Amino acid sequence: MCDFNVNLKLCFPERLRHILDDDNTPTPTIFTEMDTLQHEGGELEWKESARWVKFEEKVEEGGERWSKPHVSTLTLHSLFELRTCLQTGSILLDLEGYSLPQIVDDIVDRQIADGLVAPDLREKISFVLLRKHRHQTKKPIHRSLADIGKSSNTASSESVPSGIHCSTEDLRSRQASSLGRLATCLKYVISPHTLPPAASLLCQLKNKFMKKIPRDAEASNVLIGEVDFLDKPFVSFVRLAQATTLGGLTEVPVPTRFLFILLGPHGKTKSYNEIGRAIATLMVDELFSDVAYKARDRDDLIAGVDEFLDEVIVLPPGEWDPKIRIEPPKKVPSADMRKSVLNLNELGQMNGSAGGAAGGEDEELPAPHELGEELKFTGRFGGGLWLDIKRKIPWYCSDIYDGFHIQSISAVLFIYLGCITNAITFGGLLGDATDNYQGVMESFLGTALAGTVFCVFGGQPLIILSSTGPILIFEKLLYEFSKNNGIDYMELRLWIGLHSCLQCFLLVVTDASYIIKYMTRFTEEGFSSLISFIFISDAIKKMIGAWKYYPINRGFKPDYITAYKCECIAPDQASALGLNVSAPLSDDNMTLLFNLTDLDWSQLSKKECVKYGGALVGSSCKYVPDLALMSFILFFGTYSMTVSLKKFKFSRYFPTKLRSLVSDFSIIISILVFCGLDGLLELDTPKLHVPTEIKPTRSDRGWLVMPFGKNPWWWYVASFVPALLVTILIFMDQQISAVIVNRKENKLKKGCGYHLDLFWVGVLMAVCSFMGLPWYVAATVISIAHIDSLKMESESSAPGEQPQFLGVREQRLTGILVFVLTGLSIFLAPILQYIPMPVLYGVFLYMGVASLSGIQVHTGRNIFSIFLFQFWERIKLYLMPPKHQPDFSFLRHVPLRRVHLFTLVQIVCLAVLWILKSTFLAIIFPVMILGLMVVRKLLDLIFSQHDLAWLDDILPDKDKKKKEDEKKKKKDKKSVEPESDEEVRGKLVAEKALYHTYYSLFVCPFSF
Amino acid sequence: MCDFNVNLKLCFPERLRHILDDDNTPTPTIFTEMDTLQHEGGELEWKESARWVKFEEKVEEGGERWSKPHVSTLTLHSLFELRTCLQTGSILLDLEGYSLPQIVDDIVDRQIADGLVAPDLREKISFVLLRKHRHQTKKPIHRSLADIGKSSNTASSESVPSGIHCSTEDLRSRQASSLGRLATCLKYVISPHTLPPAASLLCQLKNKFMKKIPRDAEASNVLIGEVDFLDKPFVSFVRLAQATTLGGLTEVPVPTRFLFILLGPHGKTKSYNEIGRAIATLMVDELFSDVAYKARDRDDLIAGVDEFLDEVIVLPPGEWDPKIRIEPPKKVPSADMRKSVLNLNELGQMNGSAGGAAGGEDEELPAPHELGEELKFTGRFGGGLWLDIKRKIPWYCSDIYDGFHIQSISAVLFIYLGCITNAITFGGLLGDATDNYQGVMESFLGTALAGTVFCVFGGQPLIILSSTGPILIFEKLLYEFSKNNGIDYMELRLWIGLHSCLQCFLLVVTDASYIIKYMTRFTEEGFSSLISFIFISDAIKKMIGAWKYYPINRGFKPDYITAYKCECIAPDQASALGLNVSAPLSDDNMTLLFNLTDLDWSQLSKKECVKYGGALVGSSCKYVPDLALMSFILFFGTYSMTVSLKKFKFSRYFPTKLRSLVSDFSIIISILVFCGLDGLLELDTPKLHVPTEIKPTRSDRGWLVMPFGKNPWWWYVASFVPALLVTILIFMDQQISAVIVNRKENKLKKGCGYHLDLFWVGVLMAVCSFMGLPWYVAATVISIAHIDSLKMESESSAPGEQPQFLGVREQRLTGILVFVLTGLSIFLAPILQYIPMPVLYGVFLYMGVASLSGIQVHTGRNIFSIFLFQFWERIKLYLMPPKHQPDFSFLRHVPLRRVHLFTLVQIVCLAVLWILKSTFLAIIFPVMILGLMVVRKLLDLIFSQHDLAWLDDILPDKDKKKKEDEKKKKKDKKSVEPESDEEVRGKLVAEKALYHTYYSLFVCPFSF
Repeated sequence: MCDFNVNLKLCFPERLRHILDDDNTPTPTIFTEMDTLQHEGGELEWKESARWVKFEEKVEEGGERWSKPHVSTLTLHSLFELRTCLQTGSILLDLEGYSLPQIVDDIVDRQIADGLVAPDLREKISFVLLRKHRHQTKKPIHRSLADIGKSSNTASSESVPSGIHCSTEDLRSRQASSLGRLATCLKYVISPHTLPPAASLLCQLKNKFMKKIPRDAEASNVLIGEVDFLDKPFVSFVRLAQATTLGGLTEVPVPTRFLFILLGPHGKTKSYNEIGRAIATLMVDELFSDVAYKARDRDDLIAGVDEFLDEVIVLPPGEWDPKIRIEPPKKVPSADMRKSVLNLNELGQMNGSAGGAAGGEDEELPAPHELGEELKFTGRFGGGLWLDIKRKIPWYCSDIYDGFHIQSISAVLFIYLGCITNAITFGGLLGDATDNYQGVMESFLGTALAGTVFCVFGGQPLIILSSTGPILIFEKLLYEFSKNNGIDYMELRLWIGLHSCLQCFLLVVTDASYIIKYMTRFTEEGFSSLISFIFISDAIKKMIGAWKYYPINRGFKPDYITAYKCECIAPDQASALGLNVSAPLSDDNMTLLFNLTDLDWSQLSKKECVKYGGALVGSSCKYVPDLALMSFILFFGTYSMTVSLKKFKFSRYFPTKLRSLVSDFSIIISILVFCGLDGLLELDTPKLHVPTEIKPTRSDRGWLVMPFGKNPWWWYVASFVPALLVTILIFMDQQISAVIVNRKENKLKKGCGYHLDLFWVGVLMAVCSFMGLPWYVAATVISIAHIDSLKMESESSAPGEQPQFLGVREQRLTGILVFVLTGLSIFLAPILQYIPMPVLYGVFLYMGVASLSGIQVHTGRNIFSIFLFQFWERIKLYLMPPKHQPDFSFLRHVPLRRVHLFTLVQIVCLAVLWILKSTFLAIIFPVMILGLMVVRKLLDLIFSQHDLAWLDDILPDKDKKKKEDEKKKKKDKKSVEPESDEEVRGKLVAEKALYHTYYSLFVCPFSF
Repeated sequence: MCDFNVNLKLCFPERLRHILDDDNTPTPTIFTEMDTLQHEGGELEWKESARWVKFEEKVEEGGERWSKPHVSTLTLHSLFELRTCLQTGSILLDLEGYSLPQIVDDIVDRQIADGLVAPDLREKISFVLLRKHRHQTKKPIHRSLADIGKSSNTASSESVPSGIHCSTEDLRSRQASSLGRLATCLKYVISPHTLPPAASLLCQLKNKFMKKIPRDAEASNVLIGEVDFLDKPFVSFVRLAQATTLGGLTEVPVPTRFLFILLGPHGKTKSYNEIGRAIATLMVDELFSDVAYKARDRDDLIAGVDEFLDEVIVLPPGEWDPKIRIEPPKKVPSADMRKSVLNLNELGQMNGSAGGAAGGEDEELPAPHELGEELKFTGRFGGGLWLDIKRKIPWYCSDIYDGFHIQSISAVLFIYLGCITNAITFGGLLGDATDNYQGVMESFLGTALAGTVFCVFGGQPLIILSSTGPILIFEKLLYEFSKNNGIDYMELRLWIGLHSCLQCFLLVVTDASYIIKYMTRFTEEGFSSLISFIFISDAIKKMIGAWKYYPINRGFKPDYITAYKCECIAPDQASALGLNVSAPLSDDNMTLLFNLTDLDWSQLSKKECVKYGGALVGSSCKYVPDLALMSFILFFGTYSMTVSLKKFKFSRYFPTKLRSLVSDFSIIISILVFCGLDGLLELDTPKLHVPTEIKPTRSDRGWLVMPFGKNPWWWYVASFVPALLVTILIFMDQQISAVIVNRKENKLKKGCGYHLDLFWVGVLMAVCSFMGLPWYVAATVISIAHIDSLKMESESSAPGEQPQFLGVREQRLTGILVFVLTGLSIFLAPILQYIPMPVLYGVFLYMGVASLSGIQVHTGRNIFSIFLFQFWERIKLYLMPPKHQPDFSFLRHVPLRRVHLFTLVQIVCLAVLWILKSTFLAIIFPVMILGLMVVRKLLDLIFSQHDLAWLDDILPDKDKKKKEDEKKKKKDKKSVEPESDEEVRGKLVAEKALYHTYYSLFVCPFSF
């Protein structure tokens, strides 16, 4: 009895499938304009009241302006009324029409022929339908101010629309009045408050809105009016054989294809308007517009309406206020998907909010983790490298010209500042570690050389090479070892570099990079968050350093300023005063001392005083005023200003373009502002000092290291062992950064080149070793920053549609420029010396924090992170009560406590890595990443593949297995396949064996 | 032909109106739970899959938790299916039921009787319907951690629900298994990871969720299941005669009133679930639940569904993704409104998004500006005052006990700090202006005295009294006048105070305060934004002062610290060195000097040195290190931390209670943090110093001023004239602040007392004059801050419903405590001296900025300002491109350029006021407010009443006029009545005459 036959036969998709499948040609996008009949003064005219590109924009009644684009909320009532209208009105399909009067004639003829309207009304109906059309256009601001005088206190009654409404009408039909129209236009031309003449004469053509409409668009015009001579509605739906521009019918010069006319007796305006909105909304619906283009008869159209009705989403009246305009969603279901649903004949399915707890819910799994064919094992000698080169060559030209964009300037400056700060920091540390065998100068030259070469020839030019922590530690240990054993450091290092280079080549030709595909989100997140934390902690440490370096005199009393001084006292006096003079009285100094006994000690500076063995006496000697606080202000100010300016993009103020520009240049702006502030206060804050002369930091070394002569011959062979360590270090560092850069979320289109990258890193190893420069490898954080500063978003198309993240401006130019600039920095020193270091540390802090939250993409008012750092989001979940947690898709599918457990494992791993990193074990850092991969493998034992698919990615083998299963059981719809215990165990054994091999290969050497 | 008879007869409201009107008793709120039949292991059970209080909460499939409450999006399909089910299934209304088995028996009986089901299925159906029910309950976190061990790698296949699902079933029917249930519960009791015993035994009773359900609620249970023995659906809708608790049927102990059962053959789970969601959504719909309670037969129910269908809001499938869960809106249309629409038989109306451009749109005007009966002109002697007292007396007790709330503590501390900062600032300035006749001590005592008296007896105890700028300027001018003319200042001041007090009384007894009703939003906004700007600019000026007071040594080079010193040199030496010694060598000093010639000058402090005429020599004398920067950090840090903590309330982290607490105490937390920071650095920043002894600042005055004796007698009369100025000043300042505090947006419930307020201000004038204390009047900014810190929000009721701003905690306690504390500050000095002044200036800055943006109310994720400062919002509009502007209701109704023009007028007025205020004209400040009112009156000439109704308020007379018109032309629906020119002009003349009178009364005296 209750057999679910609804009263209304809602859908007969057979018919639709038939017409849509018969003709598969794509149909143009439709722009809909709805005009209503108005009495203006004594005259009738059609006034635009709403328009649709994809979403609805309404003419605000009092506001005389366009509303924000919003989702059209309809009443069910109006949809049914529309359906009735289409059932009973006249439908003219493929009407040959070249002008509005002719079309109107045809329409009325048909109505009379069908007996729908009395013949004596022909004149009246035609007259009404040919009234002029008035469109809502933007009005320039100087006009609005000029208007003020006009509207006096009489303006209270009817809201007098006083904008420039570009009155256009069909010239052919109303030539008599066209003179009047011209006169109107001329009035504006002559008037002092005029639009540009061209614009006022042809405002239709110059409409800025045109940009928002796709090129191929055709218009559908909906005309709704109340007239007094009809006693029942006059409805006509017209499809023209050819889209035709019908004079001023449409606001924009888009040819009209569809016409819907509804005239009716007085008293039901609201109802008519709602029907108009319903048909307009239907016309912009991708599926219905397809039907409308291809309909053979009335029944096809009705079927289209029914199909629409069946897919419609219904909000209960008690839970939603119809007055709320719903903002367009981030994304809408594509028409194709809807069509396919149509084909599958699956009706009445509501995915997201379906109440089904039956477990049969149509769970989509997240798109599987794909690393692309770049990481396939070719099995041929150097096959991967060859493919990489083949893949990158065709893009080479575009790699250059794609770089010409304003965004690149900001990216270059930003990354350049990051690079030189890095070069100076690491240069200084390396200099300390190696007694200046490699110093700041070497660091600059090396960065410039390696970076330029890599960006010119590398497989993934978005990667930025830099010195990294593990390398620094390695160099330090190596130097100490050499010094203690009397071995020549530079020569030993050269041989290690050469061996390492060869080993890299070996890895390249054997396609060894393919093991990277075992790296899942888990590993990447672990690695890159560790690197980010190191960045952040380094930046903060530097700042805390400033407090130590510039101690503040805490007990300072302004009134007792007379008691604060610092005097330099000669050593003899000092001892007389009972002071402990600890100046180094070495041989050199002794001779000096004799010459200096009658020196004016009070005139010496602090450094000189100490140098000559004097004693500094006084309460202000230990302290440096203002600098610590100023450094803090600069540091924190730069960071927070950058963050705020980045966010400014999502504010409501100023036009989008300006905001994007500010956001893109936020770092540069912040740096400039705080350099300016620093300059204003003229305080002696620590500044960026780059070397100004090209010569090795240590005068006893040249620019070339000789391979032979200083060390015993067997060292040339033995250096193979430490080289292995370096190779692993470089391999892991380089390839993980590359995987992170190449992740599919970044939507890179030009492919990547893991083998090619490694090849060039190897080559550079050798070159740098010969020149005694530091070794370079991909730097995760700066590379992410590089990508972030080059991201592209679509210009928003239809009003209300959200701009989409399109990808990254992939090119070589920015990278090359960054490193060329780095090389030229030696000549830029006079400019660079104005940049205070705390500002740069602020930039570092920003880089660390930004790379923690991944690349942020703008969707409407929401910022949302596309990249990595689900991890970070998941950590935040710990602090949120479940009811406030955002609606992440993994939360819909994985129990919260499993999510928390997964996050906890990651946190523990990270903590262990952090602790290890802080000890001398830092040198085996890359091996720890392998450790992460093992942990990930073990997670298979704790978590189900289903959970892992949501929280992480499925490991390649499992992935493949699953796909096969899916294919097999497509009808079953249970896409997550439970694996039997035996299966899992079996595979585990096999994979453990595999890992074991890797382990013995890579981990053993570390016992040296 | 197209006569809008829809195929489906959607609505027959006659029938509904009939049943709803017949019985007007309110029906209980309905809680709906939907359970679906599941196979758990080999056993069948009902598992909760969703619930509705007002919005839907779904059990997340994989997540094993409740989704966020969201609007139920249904498919049209399922609604029609539901309708069919109700048409064909069995409907049992007012069934007498006391237990589930009996009810089930009745249901099956009926089905068999109706021939809907074969009698042999009775057993099977009953069996299925009596399976136990498993509810989704929250699981404590320690349990979830304990669970981790259990779920091993076998957990991959079916998501095993491992929470504590409190299994309860009907005891009567399944006594056999109840032992098992008890065992389960006991297991939890015994287990170490246990719930509190009571909770686990009766978890149903202790369910935290119970709080969210209204007390009178009744349950409706929806049971949806697939079984294999049926070949067509089994549908039953049951309404029990009495709501009955049916054991474990419902998650919470709410008695069940409705039952909807749908059992059907396999293969259509989705469809069944959607039907279940549809009936559940209908049941929580206020209108349908009313119908369900009152329905007499099946047709009434169907009519209810149809009515629902007709009101439904439809989203087009191409513009909305059904997967998006729609967050509950800020407010939903009330059921009453929907019912009235039903009665008016106005169907198919969609207000907000209606495309109607016909001008007939149902424009609601904003609620008119009502000042309430407090400002009615009684015409009787002291009638207003008498009414005020009568109005406030009944609230007096609650005025005390309403103050006992944790929020009060924060409010008291916040306002207290604001008050003493103000007292010290103004005290200092007053001291300077009057040669310490009134100093910090007087300021403290006066604040304490006036504030306490006002809060105890005043009409609006939320108002905070304070010294204000205009009074300060008046005192300054008066003191100068007295000194130059040899008049005794204190005595003159006493007489002015007495006159002013009398004039206040005169204003009180003549109900003069009623003119305040001519003050519209325009005036209030102008006044309070001016005050806010003064606050902000004062705070910033103070900070800039710090830079001057503690100059930074900009050229400081840390290395040359030896060159920086500051020495005190004896005058003779100084002159010898050619220094210009400008020490005041007055008589006193000369005598000193002789004694000091052999003083050790180098041991003197800076002040001593200057005092004794020494010269300060050295490069560091002019500078004070660190303090300026530290002050800046403290100032800016306090401000930004307060702002961030205030915003923290709207973050997602931590439970709502904690966040509110942090937000409420944000200022105190910030102050403490930055006092701590200051303490840590031990720098000598300027601190808050309060006097520690009660004695007049100037030793030659006592605590009482004698009225006679020092000045000629005619001054006693003449002081009438300056007193008039003071009166106006006090009247305007006091009453505008009161109007702002009493605005209806603040939802004050205890009424106000303009006349009573003014009476006490007058009394305090006299008292303060006698004691030689400053005069006090309402302080806008601090009063707003007071209200802001006391605002109440509703505990959110139904899940997903937004908390509402309920009003302000109106009481006298906080005010009294603030001022008692102010009085006691003299004893608190040892604690208060740790508070640095820059921190307090930061608080001032925050107060100014916060009062600019009004009182901010929390609705969902949006912060939205209810109070004033539409002005501020409108200023922001200048910077926003129209498409990014928020959807303010006035923007929907008033053209943007009119809005901009209105804002421009306000800005110009403000600028003029600001300029005037900066000159000596500040003294006629209150008169300028009258000026604002005149400008507002003139705006009537430029703007239509319609626009003004949206942007401002309509002036009282016009308002009344309009209401009458509205009543007259109710059917016409055009609520904004155009006034004919004659009418307007006529009224203008009349009103101008009125203004003229006020002018001559108030403005003339200023020519003195």
